Amino acid sequence: MRIAVLGTGMVGRTLAARLAELGHVVTVGTRDVATASARTGPDTFGNPPLAEWREHHPDINLAGFAEAAADAELVINATNGAGSLAALEAAGDEHLSGKVLVDVSNPLDVSHGMPPSLLVSNTDSLAEQIQRRFPTARVVKALNTVNAQLMVDPRRLAGGDHSVFVCGDDPDAKAQVTGLLESFGWSDVIDLGDITTARGAEMYLPLWTRLWATLGTPVFTIKVVR
Amino acid sequence: MRIAVLGTGMVGRTLAARLAELGHVVTVGTRDVATASARTGPDTFGNPPLAEWREHHPDINLAGFAEAAADAELVINATNGAGSLAALEAAGDEHLSGKVLVDVSNPLDVSHGMPPSLLVSNTDSLAEQIQRRFPTARVVKALNTVNAQLMVDPRRLAGGDHSVFVCGDDPDAKAQVTGLLESFGWSDVIDLGDITTARGAEMYLPLWTRLWATLGTPVFTIKVVR
Repeated sequence: MRIAVLGTGMVGRTLAARLAELGHVVTVGTRDVATASARTGPDTFGNPPLAEWREHHPDINLAGFAEAAADAELVINATNGAGSLAALEAAGDEHLSGKVLVDVSNPLDVSHGMPPSLLVSNTDSLAEQIQRRFPTARVVKALNTVNAQLMVDPRRLAGGDHSVFVCGDDPDAKAQVTGLLESFGWSDVIDLGDITTARGAEMYLPLWTRLWATLGTPVFTIKVVR
Repeated sequence: MRIAVLGTGMVGRTLAARLAELGHVVTVGTRDVATASARTGPDTFGNPPLAEWREHHPDINLAGFAEAAADAELVINATNGAGSLAALEAAGDEHLSGKVLVDVSNPLDVSHGMPPSLLVSNTDSLAEQIQRRFPTARVVKALNTVNAQLMVDPRRLAGGDHSVFVCGDDPDAKAQVTGLLESFGWSDVIDLGDITTARGAEMYLPLWTRLWATLGTPVFTIKVVR
């Protein structure tokens, strides 16, 4: 499948590399290709420069948000949650319309330091904001509850015996995303319901960030025991 | 130990019965003993009348909030989250001061129907509100992430192989509550940190309520896999 991964951070890179490994044709989307390619030092999160990463992934394309989305059958939003709506605006309504749009972002507010609070929560969610702004996109919230390494390789922990969620209004889109997650190695994909259930998935983050601090590693997740 | 369980709903009753079974001297606290005792029909949640429940638990005392708290060494807030601050006001500062106050409530707003949103979240939590209002009480948030039956009998599910949290500013109080949870059968009690980490425990509820709807039972929980 032709997949656009919007966002060049650790999450975007990890998803792109895994999807390419699985045989998909992957384009990573960024705001400004020239700027992103010219950067020579690590980014604010300590990730190596994109150009260096691309040398190890010559099969993965790089394009602007609009070009990446235009060419894709499925689009993944792996941008910073605070900038996701702007990034998707740049990708363009017409390039998202009718497509499955997997939202893996979290609306974290790090402006007051760590741990972050949420920019939207309780009676709304980022996934709902995205679905409202792009009503013909088929938004599915997924994978935002786990660290990038676990997203694409759940079996690295407890043989994959833990849970992940999909939320969205379109059953076919959720089925397609569930298939994609299964190809990553996920075996317990729980369909939480319509897109409003993304509030639950996003509001788990304050627990996640505290567990991260307590456990001393982001490589953990939850199993829904029933 | 002499324990006051404030709240006569299903959570309060279940905790009280289990604590009495474990040998503690338990008093259930209510706003108005006469009114609570006189009710003959089921309450709004379908629980049988308190008088009927008390017939099966003759060893458990019933008293007003203040009297129950005054006599206790440890107090459990099992009142409805929307009314918890008022209930604790009625219990009285002087009867909570210096004592471990276990807060198992959730600040659920059911005024707009189901699923509920939260009355406080993101940059504050009910547990923090309680700690601020009663600064000399030793507040520990615990057990709010599971259904009443699991609270007191975690081994009924997967042999107890799942997780529960404690949050609070007082390490000794958390250690004491952890011991109490272990006496219920909990084996994975995770100390999330200070009282602000209760935001994470409370904001898990929107995920919990959606999982309840999806799974069709409230008897489930999460295991932190690491």
